[in-house]
Amino acid sequence: MSNVSLGVIVNGATSRLARHQHLPALLAIRREGGLLLSNGRRVIPEPILVGRNAVALRELADVTGIKRWSTNLDTVLAGNDDVFFDVAATGQRFQSVARAIGAGKHVYCEKPIATSLIEAMQLVSLATAAGIRHGTVQDKIFLPGFRKLLMLRKSGFFGRILEARLEFGRWIFDGEHQPVQRPSWNYRKADGGGLLLDMFPHWRYMIDHLIGKVMSVSCTCRTHIGQRRDEAGVPYEVDVEDSAFAQIEVEGNVLVSVNSSWCTRIRRDDVIVLQVDGTAGSAVATPHECYTQADLNTPTPVITIDTPQTHDFFAQWLSVPDNEKAPNSYRAGWERFIRHVAEGAEFPFTLLEGAKGVQLAELAHRSDTERRWIEVPDLERPA
Amino acid sequence: MSNVSLGVIVNGATSRLARHQHLPALLAIRREGGLLLSNGRRVIPEPILVGRNAVALRELADVTGIKRWSTNLDTVLAGNDDVFFDVAATGQRFQSVARAIGAGKHVYCEKPIATSLIEAMQLVSLATAAGIRHGTVQDKIFLPGFRKLLMLRKSGFFGRILEARLEFGRWIFDGEHQPVQRPSWNYRKADGGGLLLDMFPHWRYMIDHLIGKVMSVSCTCRTHIGQRRDEAGVPYEVDVEDSAFAQIEVEGNVLVSVNSSWCTRIRRDDVIVLQVDGTAGSAVATPHECYTQADLNTPTPVITIDTPQTHDFFAQWLSVPDNEKAPNSYRAGWERFIRHVAEGAEFPFTLLEGAKGVQLAELAHRSDTERRWIEVPDLERPA
Amino acid sequence: MSNVSLGVIVNGATSRLARHQHLPALLAIRREGGLLLSNGRRVIPEPILVGRNAVALRELADVTGIKRWSTNLDTVLAGNDDVFFDVAATGQRFQSVARAIGAGKHVYCEKPIATSLIEAMQLVSLATAAGIRHGTVQDKIFLPGFRKLLMLRKSGFFGRILEARLEFGRWIFDGEHQPVQRPSWNYRKADGGGLLLDMFPHWRYMIDHLIGKVMSVSCTCRTHIGQRRDEAGVPYEVDVEDSAFAQIEVEGNVLVSVNSSWCTRIRRDDVIVLQVDGTAGSAVATPHECYTQADLNTPTPVITIDTPQTHDFFAQWLSVPDNEKAPNSYRAGWERFIRHVAEGAEFPFTLLEGAKGVQLAELAHRSDTERRWIEVPDLERPA
Amino acid sequence: MSNVSLGVIVNGATSRLARHQHLPALLAIRREGGLLLSNGRRVIPEPILVGRNAVALRELADVTGIKRWSTNLDTVLAGNDDVFFDVAATGQRFQSVARAIGAGKHVYCEKPIATSLIEAMQLVSLATAAGIRHGTVQDKIFLPGFRKLLMLRKSGFFGRILEARLEFGRWIFDGEHQPVQRPSWNYRKADGGGLLLDMFPHWRYMIDHLIGKVMSVSCTCRTHIGQRRDEAGVPYEVDVEDSAFAQIEVEGNVLVSVNSSWCTRIRRDDVIVLQVDGTAGSAVATPHECYTQADLNTPTPVITIDTPQTHDFFAQWLSVPDNEKAPNSYRAGWERFIRHVAEGAEFPFTLLEGAKGVQLAELAHRSDTERRWIEVPDLERPA
Repeated sequence: MSNVSLGVIVNGATSRLARHQHLPALLAIRREGGLLLSNGRRVIPEPILVGRNAVALRELADVTGIKRWSTNLDTVLAGNDDVFFDVAATGQRFQSVARAIGAGKHVYCEKPIATSLIEAMQLVSLATAAGIRHGTVQDKIFLPGFRKLLMLRKSGFFGRILEARLEFGRWIFDGEHQPVQRPSWNYRKADGGGLLLDMFPHWRYMIDHLIGKVMSVSCTCRTHIGQRRDEAGVPYEVDVEDSAFAQIEVEGNVLVSVNSSWCTRIRRDDVIVLQVDGTAGSAVATPHECYTQADLNTPTPVITIDTPQTHDFFAQWLSVPDNEKAPNSYRAGWERFIRHVAEGAEFPFTLLEGAKGVQLAELAHRSDTERRWIEVPDLERPA
Repeated sequence: MSNVSLGVIVNGATSRLARHQHLPALLAIRREGGLLLSNGRRVIPEPILVGRNAVALRELADVTGIKRWSTNLDTVLAGNDDVFFDVAATGQRFQSVARAIGAGKHVYCEKPIATSLIEAMQLVSLATAAGIRHGTVQDKIFLPGFRKLLMLRKSGFFGRILEARLEFGRWIFDGEHQPVQRPSWNYRKADGGGLLLDMFPHWRYMIDHLIGKVMSVSCTCRTHIGQRRDEAGVPYEVDVEDSAFAQIEVEGNVLVSVNSSWCTRIRRDDVIVLQVDGTAGSAVATPHECYTQADLNTPTPVITIDTPQTHDFFAQWLSVPDNEKAPNSYRAGWERFIRHVAEGAEFPFTLLEGAKGVQLAELAHRSDTERRWIEVPDLERPA
Repeated sequence: MSNVSLGVIVNGATSRLARHQHLPALLAIRREGGLLLSNGRRVIPEPILVGRNAVALRELADVTGIKRWSTNLDTVLAGNDDVFFDVAATGQRFQSVARAIGAGKHVYCEKPIATSLIEAMQLVSLATAAGIRHGTVQDKIFLPGFRKLLMLRKSGFFGRILEARLEFGRWIFDGEHQPVQRPSWNYRKADGGGLLLDMFPHWRYMIDHLIGKVMSVSCTCRTHIGQRRDEAGVPYEVDVEDSAFAQIEVEGNVLVSVNSSWCTRIRRDDVIVLQVDGTAGSAVATPHECYTQADLNTPTPVITIDTPQTHDFFAQWLSVPDNEKAPNSYRAGWERFIRHVAEGAEFPFTLLEGAKGVQLAELAHRSDTERRWIEVPDLERPA
Repeated sequence: MSNVSLGVIVNGATSRLARHQHLPALLAIRREGGLLLSNGRRVIPEPILVGRNAVALRELADVTGIKRWSTNLDTVLAGNDDVFFDVAATGQRFQSVARAIGAGKHVYCEKPIATSLIEAMQLVSLATAAGIRHGTVQDKIFLPGFRKLLMLRKSGFFGRILEARLEFGRWIFDGEHQPVQRPSWNYRKADGGGLLLDMFPHWRYMIDHLIGKVMSVSCTCRTHIGQRRDEAGVPYEVDVEDSAFAQIEVEGNVLVSVNSSWCTRIRRDDVIVLQVDGTAGSAVATPHECYTQADLNTPTPVITIDTPQTHDFFAQWLSVPDNEKAPNSYRAGWERFIRHVAEGAEFPFTLLEGAKGVQLAELAHRSDTERRWIEVPDLERPA
């Protein structure tokens, strides 16, 4: 049975995320003979690398063995490739995706899909009108630890879910004494920077899928470190938040505390830790692990006065084993999107889902400004 | 040189807190020959046990060797004792303390000093007008871990403090399958119950003293478990919050996330954990321990995709040693208050400080109702 | 309010079980001022020690401070004591208990209540006809580990219970090279010896209460060690089983494997280990501990061929904490029986329950003889 | 001296057991230059892969470097290969092996050698009449732990063996929330499924070789989980037992408790644990370890009442060291069978031994149906 080629335009191919996650995922599918469809055929993705730096593109082409690359997006969009994938810097995403839709491409893109809800919904409308297939990367829910958390919820482990705590953060150096770990555009509003736009799209789909539908948000932002040094060591002013403390209400009266910060140091299981407490048990999930404490294993500690605490609070949890081998989380997304394009398989992570992430970031900003809770209304699917 | 007797009326003497903390603290001072004043004399506290249950009082008198006890507070207040100490259930505190002030006693009392700010400030006024000496128990800051945290701040360890996280909570059983760990009045509004009134007085003085002056509060409450069983196994309705997620702004633009819950399970260092992040370093304090990570020891972890996290985030912190032996935290309060009464020594934890705790609980409730940030104004010291 | 005396005849007072468990339980109740009834009165047990060896009785009276003792049971039964408690050797129990009932005493006795079902049911009839209050010691279910197991079942932890394994046993030396640990009468039929009569009464009430109603039994016995030395070092022939492998069917199609042996060595958590497997989780209980593995924490190990096993199968279980402090298991039985006698409180562990234990032992013997499954019929409560 | 080729037809070559155990064993012998015979020649096994799925066979041929493969068993049987090895699904085994014997091949096969004793004995007759050499895989006794147990018995360590406990089991998920770990045919009678047919052939040769000759069996089966999901997620009904509790009498009056279950969770040393108790000592063997407790090291624990158990029952056993390096257990079988075929070396694991395994499974089923002990008669070797 003959195989099928799928041309995939990778816009922003030299970005860290493209190099380390998306391209390896596509190349792994190629290496294994393509993705098997339900009709027995195999789809072989044929990437073309697109970017602004010809030198970097050529180098990347050499390393990966991908033959096609270009610095001219217009020319590429005029070609026969099927899928446009955007992994370039956030600030240009709306323009690029809109052009790709105009060129009749199916589109798949990194989060956030735009820097404002208006633009995000415009992309949804354009895509719907054009009748193309579309999706956004929602990689975190494919990580083993969060998959296990979802299994726990589906199996009824929690009883009634009461509350959750999402702790994210790590310390990002300002470049004064130690090298910076994030690109400077992340700290500039004009380039689509800011912690909310970067992380709240993740929190939106994680909460929607793992806990329950997001209903309202209260958020307080801070710009703790006002001046930083860029990639060249030159000082610049930060005009976006580098820390955000939010509370999110989820259907069923569940409350989620969401602390995100680039100005904190980690004393917990991992960079992201999501604890869910229910009447029948609690779980603490990280990207790779998930620990449970059932109600029946719950101890009754107190604040000790004259002696150190006698409980070892980490020994009182049990790991959920890796019974099911999870594939790479980016590849999992690609496989589902390719099946969506190639054989119409169901794909829940559409641009509308991507728009929800932008919406949450935007309303969280508004909550910070107005210093009050903001409702998160349903987004209307265009007719 | 002759010693001095100090009559101490212990109202609510059979309560858990009196039995296990306050009375042992007073008895220890007696056993060691009294508290040494700066003039070389010793003050010997002479407690009289007051309560409503004669059988329990007599039994307690036997066990402790304290000879005086009574069920008649009026008679006791008419006597010659110097200090009135209130550790009875919260609901009666205002009345009892007001009467004691009226009787010319110095007063010392457990938190919250009243169930509303108006009543709390009335006590402050009465005490000021009466010219008596007064104080509230603020025991947590005398616990070894929080003392170390204060030492870190005073030493400049943190650089500029940016943000803090206070996590408090444990699971309180509802009495269905496992015995309850808290008295039922904690879950009834009419009896002065509720998590805010119970814990926010602690958070107020801890934040004021350990981090900085409280400026405003945003708080969201939940009553997760609506029905519980009381001490006799009889079901009752809960009409107060059993969980509260707050954010507190502190002078200097510092943000403190304060999650308090009786419906969570513990996967962290202790029942109370306070993390403070500053430009020069972070610390995580529990009642007995304090761990530090200086900026120069801060690693640069990332979210791993294909492999488990490689960092051991607990091994990257260093304990602050117990170089200074801390006394029992309740005794520390008593010693300072006795010196205040006996020789006019400075005592910062006055009823006004106690009123601040009630204020924070009250405004947190208002924030929950109005779903917005509420300013926390300065309380005026009565003229 | 005046207290009440309760005369308790302790027949077999010098036995190990009386000395180490029952008398200390009664004395502890005395020492604490008696057992508090619901009407506020206290019952003070007044034991009288009865046995055959005057020297041993006098010595025991001295050690315990119990003033009354006698070697003449008839005289004692003719007295005013309220309760007859039998903890003497099994072989004489039927006669003694029948006489006590005839004398109008309330009776409480150790297991087995008789050496045959006919005699056991005769005691039930006598007691019913006499209208006295009666009970048997069923101490194991009051041990902390089995209490936790019961809590697990009641809370629904197991989902549907499928099967259970009860492993009991230890090595009893034959007296050849090492001293024996059990009295020689345990190995003689004429004295009421044998493993079935000793242990199956325990298994009956444990299974009935902790798992479900016993329906049928299949049992195979062995006398592995045919000759032993008695307390004086004299060899004797063993004419009872010292090992029994049983299967017990419980309502709901649950199967329980019950291996009991005095000829095995222990490589498991304790002398008695009861594992219960259900669809939603499994638990392993010992007298003091209870470990759980929920379905979601269940790993997928295989038999490794080329390498040692990689799973640590003990680390995959979580302990159920001691949230509720369990009283001494023998004292728990006494308190309930005394309340039953003194104020008619409910007492489920009647002589009929004791007869069920004898029944199981008897039918297990019959199964061994006939080499087939035997139904365990309901015992009729006498009219 | 010239080497000898041995053509080996591997029927069911793409099965898990062939891929991971048998083919690697054969290839390892090839890689090391063949199996050395006593005459100094080397036998080089030349496998031909046989199965029904051409794609899978071709892929396997590629991966292993084995050149010959076929989907036509008749053609292959008509060829010159010497040995027919059957590792295909159980349901087809009788037919395939009978045809191979008819074609004059020597036969070696996985257990069970047939799905009924009649067919198993028919294969024995056919093989005997044909004068071919034959054998069955009895891999477990070649595992290091069970080899050590055999060494203990042969050395007289146990004194007189009294009783044994074989605990086998693990939890097999039903496919509802977690992926299944066993093929669905294992749960269908028509396909040769069921726990007895799968495991009792192992227990037969293990008990016969490691403890003593099997004399009679009592067995009770359960189908605990009546509905499961197959490899494609489709629900199906289970019509075989998934749990079996057996007792097996062995010559010398030894009793063996054999609990096997796919519905239990493991709190013991390994998936299979075999404990043997003797007058002089006990041993606990797993596939890779063997622990001993001699009579002289045996402690005298009791059931503790007021305190947790004080014995650490795992620390009281001593490991038997791996002084002799055991080869892979499947390769060990192949080496002995190849020597049997190539130079007539003794080979105890004939088809008659394989028939004994089927016999035990069959009689265990009968015992379950008739609810009584069943004798296990000697199987007559055909004249």
